[in-house]
Amino acid sequence: MPNSKLLAGVELGGTKCVCILGSGPDDVRAQERLPTGEREETLRQIEAVLDRWRHQHGAARALGIASFGPVDLRADSPAFGFITSTTKPGWRNTDIAQRLGRRLGIPVGFDTDVNGAALAEGRWGAAAGLDDYAYVTVGTGIGVGTIVRGRPIFGMNHTELGHIRVVRRPGDPFGGICSFHGDCVEGLASGPAIEARAGMPASKLPADHPAWEFVAHSLAQLMHTMVLTTAPQRIFLGGGVMSAQQHLFERIQQELKRSLNHYVEAPQLEQGLPQFIVPPGLGTMAGPLGALALALDAANPTAAQQTPVATAATR
Amino acid sequence: MPNSKLLAGVELGGTKCVCILGSGPDDVRAQERLPTGEREETLRQIEAVLDRWRHQHGAARALGIASFGPVDLRADSPAFGFITSTTKPGWRNTDIAQRLGRRLGIPVGFDTDVNGAALAEGRWGAAAGLDDYAYVTVGTGIGVGTIVRGRPIFGMNHTELGHIRVVRRPGDPFGGICSFHGDCVEGLASGPAIEARAGMPASKLPADHPAWEFVAHSLAQLMHTMVLTTAPQRIFLGGGVMSAQQHLFERIQQELKRSLNHYVEAPQLEQGLPQFIVPPGLGTMAGPLGALALALDAANPTAAQQTPVATAATR
Repeated sequence: MPNSKLLAGVELGGTKCVCILGSGPDDVRAQERLPTGEREETLRQIEAVLDRWRHQHGAARALGIASFGPVDLRADSPAFGFITSTTKPGWRNTDIAQRLGRRLGIPVGFDTDVNGAALAEGRWGAAAGLDDYAYVTVGTGIGVGTIVRGRPIFGMNHTELGHIRVVRRPGDPFGGICSFHGDCVEGLASGPAIEARAGMPASKLPADHPAWEFVAHSLAQLMHTMVLTTAPQRIFLGGGVMSAQQHLFERIQQELKRSLNHYVEAPQLEQGLPQFIVPPGLGTMAGPLGALALALDAANPTAAQQTPVATAATR
Repeated sequence: MPNSKLLAGVELGGTKCVCILGSGPDDVRAQERLPTGEREETLRQIEAVLDRWRHQHGAARALGIASFGPVDLRADSPAFGFITSTTKPGWRNTDIAQRLGRRLGIPVGFDTDVNGAALAEGRWGAAAGLDDYAYVTVGTGIGVGTIVRGRPIFGMNHTELGHIRVVRRPGDPFGGICSFHGDCVEGLASGPAIEARAGMPASKLPADHPAWEFVAHSLAQLMHTMVLTTAPQRIFLGGGVMSAQQHLFERIQQELKRSLNHYVEAPQLEQGLPQFIVPPGLGTMAGPLGALALALDAANPTAAQQTPVATAATR
């Protein structure tokens, strides 16, 4: 008999995995962190944690998996629940959600790590009360979860803004490191890209290093595109690079303002800029709580699909 | 007493306005086309048409206005219903929807021309049955209406994809003509941009003119960004430039495929490409019928807000 409130979650990241058990930020019963290594060994370690928790705490109502991507979320696809064309070596075409779902025999919510984190920010964090916003992570990769009318965008598949191509700051000689696109925004401004550019880990690079001008420019171009394509009410900008290098916030804000050049008339883009591009409210817990948010939606699928509706007659 | 089915619409374009009266594509009772000139004169001519129709046909249930932008759609803004920071001379900060609504005394639906056209394609055209798609026009400007779960994206305000900055094809010396951004996609690939680049109107430029390689590259970069930011199930690509230069479809499809480099695994982006980027089903009527679609939503605000919900438990 499943425990009425208990939810299990797995945040499967490019560098580490976090398994989490609980019902929300104020009720985390257990948490375990594992390195994301060889895929079979990593999945077996995750399964061992989930099995142990089931013996200790009883069956959870649902499992949420917030995974690095790209993943296949098309309900009618044989590869639903797989990691697909990832840049991460050895993880291409890996079944995640079908495998863990069969093992646990409970409902599984599966989405990208950033969509999960965005939903968690809406449910428990700094996006509470917002219907349209975005969560961006700048770390091992660059990912964006975009929420429109309360739910992640989903069409042909999930979105993948880390791989948009952005214009370059004049004089930037760096070719980018993305194995698919070279100098897409992830290829230019993710943690590994910054390290490849500057020869030193992004977290250790001094704030006055010239690399930051280029990195801020690329991230501001990502924001320029986000403002014009999905018009978020607020952008939450987190991940390892952002939390280690707080000076980036103001640089990105100023560069965004220059780039949009007052074309979009909104207070968020003028005096409201410091409140428009902000750190996530849940901090480093946004990822693991994202997995719990997906589990909660899988446990209550009808509630999850009750999309908030717009209020003006003209929309 | 308003006529039970009759709707009035105004498609306010950068070059011409189309006033339309009817209830849908199979019931257009009247249509009049006016040049978009000096703003006061243009608005008075529109008012004269709408007044005359009211005398001849009785009051319509609602008016839909599908306008070039940017426009203010924020229900709580004093400038709701205005054209705001437009590149079109003399039209900045022009009240459209409040003025026409006061004059006619009926509900007014107001949105961008491309959001209107996208809704019309969904209701009566080639997007019937799709929940997530986009309508792009390449003409006097470049505009995109993006539909997510059946409704246009709306957050901070409406979207404005024509003004994203795109990477340039190597060797392209053209600086772009956008007064806000220079070489944003509208500044590079709209009709006036093509004319500025090639010294000849876009509709008259031969298919083997070297300018088309650059134009197709810019438009493919817009599609690359659209696929990764809003993941449409299909993209409808219309407007004067596209209808005059059909060879652009295949060029854009091939350039998009090269640029994405198989990162997004979806049949639409491989063998399905010719069915992924297609002309609009309503052709040149997409714009005026967009105004009628907005009128219909204003007449039935509750139905318009019943957003279709996703079907898979994991979304």
